[in-house]
Amino acid sequence: MENTLLEKAQKGELSYEIKSAFENEEIPAMEILLKNIVEGKTVIPANKKRKRNKYYAIGKDCTVKINANIGVTGSYSSFDKELKKAELCEKYNVESVMDLSCGTFAKRFREKLINEFSFIVGSVPIYDLSVKFKDFTKAKPKDFLEVLEEHVETGVDFVTIHAGINRELVEKLKDKNRLLNIVSRGGSMIYKWMETNNFENPYFEYFEDVLKILKKYDATISIGDAFRPGCIQDAGEELQVRETYIVSKLAEKAREYGVQVIIEGPGHVRANEIYWTVKMIKKICKDAPLYVLGPLTTDIAAGYDHISGSMGALIASLAGADFLCYVTPAEHLRLPDLEDVKEGIIAFKIAAHSANIARGFRKSIEKDIEMSLARRELNWEKIINLSIDPEKTKRYRGELHNTCTMCGELCAIKNSS
Amino acid sequence: MENTLLEKAQKGELSYEIKSAFENEEIPAMEILLKNIVEGKTVIPANKKRKRNKYYAIGKDCTVKINANIGVTGSYSSFDKELKKAELCEKYNVESVMDLSCGTFAKRFREKLINEFSFIVGSVPIYDLSVKFKDFTKAKPKDFLEVLEEHVETGVDFVTIHAGINRELVEKLKDKNRLLNIVSRGGSMIYKWMETNNFENPYFEYFEDVLKILKKYDATISIGDAFRPGCIQDAGEELQVRETYIVSKLAEKAREYGVQVIIEGPGHVRANEIYWTVKMIKKICKDAPLYVLGPLTTDIAAGYDHISGSMGALIASLAGADFLCYVTPAEHLRLPDLEDVKEGIIAFKIAAHSANIARGFRKSIEKDIEMSLARRELNWEKIINLSIDPEKTKRYRGELHNTCTMCGELCAIKNSS
Repeated sequence: MENTLLEKAQKGELSYEIKSAFENEEIPAMEILLKNIVEGKTVIPANKKRKRNKYYAIGKDCTVKINANIGVTGSYSSFDKELKKAELCEKYNVESVMDLSCGTFAKRFREKLINEFSFIVGSVPIYDLSVKFKDFTKAKPKDFLEVLEEHVETGVDFVTIHAGINRELVEKLKDKNRLLNIVSRGGSMIYKWMETNNFENPYFEYFEDVLKILKKYDATISIGDAFRPGCIQDAGEELQVRETYIVSKLAEKAREYGVQVIIEGPGHVRANEIYWTVKMIKKICKDAPLYVLGPLTTDIAAGYDHISGSMGALIASLAGADFLCYVTPAEHLRLPDLEDVKEGIIAFKIAAHSANIARGFRKSIEKDIEMSLARRELNWEKIINLSIDPEKTKRYRGELHNTCTMCGELCAIKNSS
Repeated sequence: MENTLLEKAQKGELSYEIKSAFENEEIPAMEILLKNIVEGKTVIPANKKRKRNKYYAIGKDCTVKINANIGVTGSYSSFDKELKKAELCEKYNVESVMDLSCGTFAKRFREKLINEFSFIVGSVPIYDLSVKFKDFTKAKPKDFLEVLEEHVETGVDFVTIHAGINRELVEKLKDKNRLLNIVSRGGSMIYKWMETNNFENPYFEYFEDVLKILKKYDATISIGDAFRPGCIQDAGEELQVRETYIVSKLAEKAREYGVQVIIEGPGHVRANEIYWTVKMIKKICKDAPLYVLGPLTTDIAAGYDHISGSMGALIASLAGADFLCYVTPAEHLRLPDLEDVKEGIIAFKIAAHSANIARGFRKSIEKDIEMSLARRELNWEKIINLSIDPEKTKRYRGELHNTCTMCGELCAIKNSS
């Protein structure tokens, strides 16, 4: 079997993917990127069945990246709508898209993403169990492996596998006073399956088989956190932390198999607890790339969770998070529409960009300097083009006057220039 | 002359305003609030000419408050529109509104805010110079004092006075490589006036007269930072810091006069520099209440500055900022419309609420717990009512199904309950 990207890196081989990813970063030497990959601190999700123009590195010394979730559900009617979302992701340079499709057309949609777009593609194979079985608790352990293989053989670059939730943790759940037990969709499916069948989590029990499948296609594993807090009150709770230790061991085993690993993190966390939470996960998981969902800094911002989530994401990035899963205004309420997806993308692009400035990345800082110079010159055309959403800026500006209506004749730039 | 709120506090007198403000807080004893006021660490902006139902304390041990800027410009047509914004502020429990009105109808609008609403009202008197004079650089120092008196005698609770920019700093500006010289509107007017007249800043030169006027009506001074950074590149620059030292001295003098003081802060600051910036200003200004504008964590988010600004505001609050001036999506582009104002309010309410949770305030935390319980029960009516903008939540939900369309049959709450 051909070596995986990680195995090649271990042998000091600079594969095409590493060279390509290096181009997008500001790492002084390719050897540093190579070393980070070997140490499991950086990943380049790249399924070997898929050829892309661009590869992205996620982790140590890299810019912060974002992911957007999209995907078709049961009916065909949503196919074109979801495709438009994918086009939006490409337009705004979203580095990664997770396909959360369910139902008959899921595979076709996934294949379209893989074949026609240049972003990283991730997926959550376990959702397919609910399609294959009227009652997914009837699935057998081999079915868990089967849906996984079906996904990676179509070419997805990384898959979320909730391998860390095991019987020991599940037993404890009853004694815990978590407000919301399990809010991870995949995690809750595994939990229900385990409870119904009184059996160990197949992804935990047969983790080596999981790794063999991933290795075959060189897919990256993103180890899901089934016990991620679903409300700020549950953050930092014992089961979440214990799962992190299990995940860390699984991550080590994966790397031994030559499989790259991403660690998934919270969720909902009070703003003042994000820093240590991120540091703790990073410590337990030996600096593996950390992929956070938000985190939301409050539970009451329904309809505006992209704002609460991007606030938390920025704070998490300052503490070391590498990869930000967006949250849209529709979170907790409904499937996001195209406008929601755009709002989510932009909020998280702002968080990632702000974090990249904070991390000292030259290209990010230069963008802001350029914008400031355009403002000094009151060069509205430049201001529009440099802003994160030129169309909105242009629309807000209306006709191009020399000043904006905000200060009008009292323009501070004019007064002080 | 009757004692000011600060003077009464110094004598240990628990005035009505202190008792009222205490009700809104979670401070264990009124004496603590009293002590904080005496030490200048907390203020209760309350012009003696104005009677309100509710008073708010801003500063040490208090919840974080927000301010929204509104105001009419030249034409009468905007009067009703701006009034609708004020109603929106009341609806969303915005604690403070600054009236940035200019022009013929400014006074009438200000009076309406003062007489018909219960929030704190602030203003920036210097803007009136541009109304009184075709060319405001023709104004005399006494005019600076006159517009100030006109404002406080209508009843505004606090006024922004850019008293810290003096000749010494202005001389230095030419040697500095700030990308954007002065972006504070009031500050830039003073700068232009000083440059044209080759005279000291009247608010600096005649600071004792300023204080006498404020004392007469017991108005709070909010000392504006003319050198606040207008782009992240200018943050932490020498003139900004030097102005802070001048402001600190003026603040001390104001308190000696029995006038309460708020300190204004940035602006635009890289996310990783917000923490020390806030700590530094707090240190220099002896823990006086800090009022920040954002700060924005990047310059390129035009059209979405409410998101970038509320991110910065949350980080600033974690470091000790007490009072958050909202930024709307229209910032840098145009006068905000009603929808922009709403977006700005909600983003900053999320920041303040997230900060209040982080500071451990029980009432804030309980709101989130209640929401989490409603989610556990999938009680959509409760979820709608508890969310920050019930109308949007309701609209997004559409008809009340038992699950949201986001996860549909794969609802994690159902799987794990």
